[in-house]
Amino acid sequence: MKKQWGGRFEGQLDPVFERFNQSLGFDRRLLEADVRGSVAWARELGAAGVLKAAEVERLVAGLEAIGRETAADPSRLDGSTAEDVHSFVESALYEKVGELAGRLHTGRSRNDQVATDLKLWARDAFGRVRSRVEDLVAALVTLADEHADAPLPGYTHLQRAQPITIGHHLLAYVEMLARDRGRLKDALARMDTCPLGAAALAGTAFGVDRPTLAERLGFKGGPAGNSLDAVASRDHACELVFCCTQIAIHLSRLAEDWIFFSTHEAGFLRFDDTVSTGSSLMPQKKNPDVMELVRGKAGRVIGDLQSLLVMLKGLPLAYNKDMQEDKEPLFDAFDTTLACLEVAAIAARGARFDRERCAAAAGEGYLNATDLADLLVSEGVPFRDAHERTGVAVRRALELGVELQDLPAATLAELFPELDGDLASLLSVEKVLSRRCVGGGTSPDRVRASVRAWKKRMAAWGM
Amino acid sequence: MKKQWGGRFEGQLDPVFERFNQSLGFDRRLLEADVRGSVAWARELGAAGVLKAAEVERLVAGLEAIGRETAADPSRLDGSTAEDVHSFVESALYEKVGELAGRLHTGRSRNDQVATDLKLWARDAFGRVRSRVEDLVAALVTLADEHADAPLPGYTHLQRAQPITIGHHLLAYVEMLARDRGRLKDALARMDTCPLGAAALAGTAFGVDRPTLAERLGFKGGPAGNSLDAVASRDHACELVFCCTQIAIHLSRLAEDWIFFSTHEAGFLRFDDTVSTGSSLMPQKKNPDVMELVRGKAGRVIGDLQSLLVMLKGLPLAYNKDMQEDKEPLFDAFDTTLACLEVAAIAARGARFDRERCAAAAGEGYLNATDLADLLVSEGVPFRDAHERTGVAVRRALELGVELQDLPAATLAELFPELDGDLASLLSVEKVLSRRCVGGGTSPDRVRASVRAWKKRMAAWGM
Amino acid sequence: MKKQWGGRFEGQLDPVFERFNQSLGFDRRLLEADVRGSVAWARELGAAGVLKAAEVERLVAGLEAIGRETAADPSRLDGSTAEDVHSFVESALYEKVGELAGRLHTGRSRNDQVATDLKLWARDAFGRVRSRVEDLVAALVTLADEHADAPLPGYTHLQRAQPITIGHHLLAYVEMLARDRGRLKDALARMDTCPLGAAALAGTAFGVDRPTLAERLGFKGGPAGNSLDAVASRDHACELVFCCTQIAIHLSRLAEDWIFFSTHEAGFLRFDDTVSTGSSLMPQKKNPDVMELVRGKAGRVIGDLQSLLVMLKGLPLAYNKDMQEDKEPLFDAFDTTLACLEVAAIAARGARFDRERCAAAAGEGYLNATDLADLLVSEGVPFRDAHERTGVAVRRALELGVELQDLPAATLAELFPELDGDLASLLSVEKVLSRRCVGGGTSPDRVRASVRAWKKRMAAWGM
Amino acid sequence: MKKQWGGRFEGQLDPVFERFNQSLGFDRRLLEADVRGSVAWARELGAAGVLKAAEVERLVAGLEAIGRETAADPSRLDGSTAEDVHSFVESALYEKVGELAGRLHTGRSRNDQVATDLKLWARDAFGRVRSRVEDLVAALVTLADEHADAPLPGYTHLQRAQPITIGHHLLAYVEMLARDRGRLKDALARMDTCPLGAAALAGTAFGVDRPTLAERLGFKGGPAGNSLDAVASRDHACELVFCCTQIAIHLSRLAEDWIFFSTHEAGFLRFDDTVSTGSSLMPQKKNPDVMELVRGKAGRVIGDLQSLLVMLKGLPLAYNKDMQEDKEPLFDAFDTTLACLEVAAIAARGARFDRERCAAAAGEGYLNATDLADLLVSEGVPFRDAHERTGVAVRRALELGVELQDLPAATLAELFPELDGDLASLLSVEKVLSRRCVGGGTSPDRVRASVRAWKKRMAAWGM
Repeated sequence: MKKQWGGRFEGQLDPVFERFNQSLGFDRRLLEADVRGSVAWARELGAAGVLKAAEVERLVAGLEAIGRETAADPSRLDGSTAEDVHSFVESALYEKVGELAGRLHTGRSRNDQVATDLKLWARDAFGRVRSRVEDLVAALVTLADEHADAPLPGYTHLQRAQPITIGHHLLAYVEMLARDRGRLKDALARMDTCPLGAAALAGTAFGVDRPTLAERLGFKGGPAGNSLDAVASRDHACELVFCCTQIAIHLSRLAEDWIFFSTHEAGFLRFDDTVSTGSSLMPQKKNPDVMELVRGKAGRVIGDLQSLLVMLKGLPLAYNKDMQEDKEPLFDAFDTTLACLEVAAIAARGARFDRERCAAAAGEGYLNATDLADLLVSEGVPFRDAHERTGVAVRRALELGVELQDLPAATLAELFPELDGDLASLLSVEKVLSRRCVGGGTSPDRVRASVRAWKKRMAAWGM
Repeated sequence: MKKQWGGRFEGQLDPVFERFNQSLGFDRRLLEADVRGSVAWARELGAAGVLKAAEVERLVAGLEAIGRETAADPSRLDGSTAEDVHSFVESALYEKVGELAGRLHTGRSRNDQVATDLKLWARDAFGRVRSRVEDLVAALVTLADEHADAPLPGYTHLQRAQPITIGHHLLAYVEMLARDRGRLKDALARMDTCPLGAAALAGTAFGVDRPTLAERLGFKGGPAGNSLDAVASRDHACELVFCCTQIAIHLSRLAEDWIFFSTHEAGFLRFDDTVSTGSSLMPQKKNPDVMELVRGKAGRVIGDLQSLLVMLKGLPLAYNKDMQEDKEPLFDAFDTTLACLEVAAIAARGARFDRERCAAAAGEGYLNATDLADLLVSEGVPFRDAHERTGVAVRRALELGVELQDLPAATLAELFPELDGDLASLLSVEKVLSRRCVGGGTSPDRVRASVRAWKKRMAAWGM
Repeated sequence: MKKQWGGRFEGQLDPVFERFNQSLGFDRRLLEADVRGSVAWARELGAAGVLKAAEVERLVAGLEAIGRETAADPSRLDGSTAEDVHSFVESALYEKVGELAGRLHTGRSRNDQVATDLKLWARDAFGRVRSRVEDLVAALVTLADEHADAPLPGYTHLQRAQPITIGHHLLAYVEMLARDRGRLKDALARMDTCPLGAAALAGTAFGVDRPTLAERLGFKGGPAGNSLDAVASRDHACELVFCCTQIAIHLSRLAEDWIFFSTHEAGFLRFDDTVSTGSSLMPQKKNPDVMELVRGKAGRVIGDLQSLLVMLKGLPLAYNKDMQEDKEPLFDAFDTTLACLEVAAIAARGARFDRERCAAAAGEGYLNATDLADLLVSEGVPFRDAHERTGVAVRRALELGVELQDLPAATLAELFPELDGDLASLLSVEKVLSRRCVGGGTSPDRVRASVRAWKKRMAAWGM
Repeated sequence: MKKQWGGRFEGQLDPVFERFNQSLGFDRRLLEADVRGSVAWARELGAAGVLKAAEVERLVAGLEAIGRETAADPSRLDGSTAEDVHSFVESALYEKVGELAGRLHTGRSRNDQVATDLKLWARDAFGRVRSRVEDLVAALVTLADEHADAPLPGYTHLQRAQPITIGHHLLAYVEMLARDRGRLKDALARMDTCPLGAAALAGTAFGVDRPTLAERLGFKGGPAGNSLDAVASRDHACELVFCCTQIAIHLSRLAEDWIFFSTHEAGFLRFDDTVSTGSSLMPQKKNPDVMELVRGKAGRVIGDLQSLLVMLKGLPLAYNKDMQEDKEPLFDAFDTTLACLEVAAIAARGARFDRERCAAAAGEGYLNATDLADLLVSEGVPFRDAHERTGVAVRRALELGVELQDLPAATLAELFPELDGDLASLLSVEKVLSRRCVGGGTSPDRVRASVRAWKKRMAAWGM
């Protein structure tokens, strides 16, 4: 295929280098955006008097046909020798409208073209990521609603700490995902300026109306304010991928928790067979593959971010060919994050908690020790002393293999002369839970209130 | 020093592990925030009836004294055997107010305490980063104002591309930094919720008023909405460090440009002696150390982000000791970014452009070839043909060692029969610049307009 | 303090930049190596006739005194205004020997000097890391010896898979650490060439004998072969830090395993109180802090590697000031890895396995299902069918809440008409273990043989 | 397609999860290795008496046919619904040999199978990387031979420092690449142990001879020593990708140098048209795309390493599904590094140095200042004083716009009363070069000797 830049050159490209240089294999994903951008550019060249109205219409018709045809049959791109998606479209346009195609690139460069395409693509793509975040939030809120009052051991350091409710645990992830959603929104708003018209680096020399052009392409922030920056910056790509890393890390933590919950040892959670696999050797195995893959893919997304950051470090202005390497990590982070969100929602919808086992576990292992200390505090003991004395009681209970409330009465009387209530009742899981009724706390009432608040917020998101 | 958690334990810590575990060496930086948080907590315990008014006052007075004394003499922390800054403060408080100190930790855990301290510190610290971003913007805008109309070769692929102005080049970095500022602002707003009251993981069991507590500590977003999330999440730390990576990458690119500008080969820019160093061996050397260090430190900040992301990946809820490793990368990213911004501003203020040399360079090397093609376009030639024919002219000019406008008249007439104007004038640097008068373009008028716009925006920032 | 490069400069350094530029705060760690390198250089200048024998002796005596004095009292470096450790030593040398100090830098640059210092330091430092790897291997082998035959559930996907022995699990980490040791050895051998004599970039102009110089400094690989490479490359630093990342990842996995083993749910392992901490709020907590910190610090070491890689990417030859940023990540990776190895060995030595609980767990949860399928295979059933039929048996057993060998006789007869032996005995943990007697397998005999083999190998390491 | 693990499961996989879980899209690359591994396994099952000789032959014939057929027509794998390459081969084998296929998996798991496949693949693949490193070394040595004596400015801090030769500059990269080659060799040797026979985690229960099995598959290090480690470790993948990062960084530095050399400003180097591209807008542009892409792809390889490291951090033993994510980064690092080495060699072979311009540049900009100071040293002036006084001379020369040897005689006499020789000759580029005749120095003789030494070493590599 004829290059877009042949005049100055004598030789042919080395075929090995040509393959190395070719980006059509991945930037074909931008075709729809490229067509959209070119249509807008054609119209602006018309408005600026560079093209006649009839020429504009022929170009637009040709471009739209290319868009339709490749959407209907993406295999048209297979095996093309075009250098990149822009050359592919230009070349297809020559076939449609002949020499007129050669007028479309007036005042435009691939530099502002690709910068525009990437933003158009990213706006749609990461809008979809946001929707999937919302879907997962919905799945978790539903599950939290169902288990708002179901006790579960709460952990710190993976050691049993205090009883919480299953709903409370799920809503922790809802908080994280809601922040992830906000981050995405901010990132999308920040990048919403139009590079087209920046040309190669210095601004186009033709009198196009950049604000109108930006509007035509749906950029709410208007035209990008500096032509060098418009073609040379990729912080928006970094920021989107960073948003993905945070989603990925939050999902990796959910995965870690649920993989632990579904062990034989904990037995709190059972995944549906639809998202589990077995072993080719061991017939009894049922593995939480879905969450393991989600956890593992955090590495991939973090690697994508790394690739982008390293590529950009120390590049001079304006465009450098290194920047062709911006697309694959962005695409991969998008694909991976979208898929992880999707399967996590499926896993959540199929998750079955063993409420009885969870409740039993919440009552075993001294998770009420803090409350015992707190009882002493209400009798006027400074917390540090109460803590110390309760610690001694725990040591005694460990030796006897009993829970705190089951210590011999004599021991209790000796250790805690201040206390005289019914410890078994005062330290029951229900009481312990209900005491955490402060805002953000784990008491069933609070969790139910949170569920209601999230449902409202989801409604405000348009769900 | 006595531990805060001794009752349950029989043995002493192994001294090697104790050193390994100790965080006072770096979390001492949180002391001021820790005191502020504890004062607020004491007041809330008072309001909740857990402490008497007089007790509150004694605690507050003691805490404030500790804050003052360590501010006046930070060496008080040197050599302390306290496990962390919280233990240090508690222990100092015992010395001031005796056993009453043991009541302060009622209903609170180090988990919500450190989460709160870190946010209080970060709010101030990264507010300072934002100010330094603004300072650097101011320095660059001033320089851009001075050189709004001074020609400079513009580059893509580090090859001369089209003339731009020095001011335009500088304003590209202003755009980047303004986005960095916006990113910081968003990050600070997103994290502005108060973890205190979340206790260890499940919410405090004492009836403190978390909204008031949040307000007391200046958190505009109110209390954190879920106690597990409040103590276990660190996406805000990641986001702040990510903001730093973008600043660092933008500075690394400015560094790369300026290091190239200051080579013997380019000779466009001279750094002040105050930010340059020499060689211990080669007496003639004057090195742009300042910008090299700035560029190199991008690696450091990117490494800090990496450390945080990897540490968090796959951690179960809620707090795990791994998270003690959140502070050093955050502190280091802060210190590094702040310092880089500061020295970059100094370098900018001392940068001397050799305007004559820049202008001469902008006129040499066919930077006006696009404009020659554009002239053909105005004569009705499709751009692709115009591009091709100009490419041939460049090849011819290269052979003859002349600029395009200096090609023999016969050659010009043969290659471009359509053109008859005064090429030397039509292709002059001034003309080429003035044609890029589109929004965001490099023409001196546009650059001056941009400078005015930035000055307004800086005023809106309160500068 | 007077700079080493003042003659060409007019102004003073900006104090902010001076602080930014100063590396003494961290490169002071190289002092001992710097002195060693300078002593060798002085002797070579003597041998080359550049210095007289008496001058050499005075320089050497002065240098050695500086080494002794700063070793005895490192605070001599505090508050020095020297730019770096090399300037500090030179300046101290002026105080000792007067103007003669000015002759030592003949034919040498800080570029080859620091490259040499760093290698000298790294050789010793990472030799110590290797020793600590060996210590941990020893601790694990001892523990494996003790528990060579103790059953433990083996996991894949954190689901119980097949019985293994505790010893076998420990020896898996021994394999990893032994590879880590080999990697370190290779890295140290590869970097063992002497940069000194490369001068700033082009080689010294004085006739020093570089092979002798290299030998004097203990470099087994002789002088570095190209002066530009000698001063500009840091792949050896990257490789050493990469070795640390592998150690850190292996330790993070051991940590994950042991943290799980020490949960209330598993209950396989108890850490000693000497490496555990409690909670400031929850009196019952005993947390495996030591292994959590070890796991978390993997992030730090991976971040260190990242910092180095990013810093080096795209740097032109030869030395650039960016490279001043090579030291801190290398130092930090060293400190962190050394400390993690040390505390992991302490944790290992204090680890108490609950053998009874481990053995009971190994017999529960269908870990013998593969062996049941294998029994069918010995009766001529293709493995895939045997696997399928055993899977059905597991489903049946799950419904009944029994182990496979405890299925009703009728069910067994129906599902497995081929089998007629005593299933309870054939599927006992002991039998299952003993069948894995292939090389590398988990049978107690094999594990004991492996322990013996490791003890021999450790002896060959000089332990 | 029927799963390998169906018996225990009731439901079907969710189709979204099934796609997410499927690895055939990328692990198909292991098909040839999988066949090789299965052939060896079949033969060992035969030797162990588990299969009859005739069964072995039928299995081997079937497997080899599958290998041949998919090699001839890889599209056979397209659209397969097999979960992974192992299932694909097993299923194809059923078609060839019927139920006998079900006997092949006896005593084997996908865990040891994939670990073996990956090593078999990596051994060949990274052997090819090593060859390409050698090719590039050859290209650079040839170029260095041609330009062994051609002067070039040497740089530190991108400022002219001292004259070097073009050959010397090229050989610096040869040193780096030779170390990269050694690193690869060490990595390949370290990983050369055979996982097969480790089964799922505990070792196979069938009496296969693992040493023979290892030998059959060409593993020089014998069988892997611990079955858990054999299936759960991926440090070899990390190490190979780390080797790639070092190659990538070295190439990124070569790229940076050559991109600078080929600027209009330096003008030292011209790339061939076969590896350069133009601009779609600017007709005069000829861009060093090849080296820019090579530089940019360093980010990608570093990101691949990151992905792997993060994925592995904190994984429990033995296999977890996260580890399915080991392949894509390894494959990508391989593809990228191989391609970068290949195009870099093409670029090197087509690189044209402008020797005259290089030589002229080496004589301009005070690159001989160190030699002037050295002349003073030979007159007995301490180096520090000589340095200081030469610095003053440079300042004077800068003011006058002349080189050092062209300073007015009076100035020279005043500044350097000790000197009386012909400065122009003493400070000529040739003299300056020839003084660096120490081992590793830049003098033409030394460079020629180095070229000879490299040619010998290449011969020893079998080139």
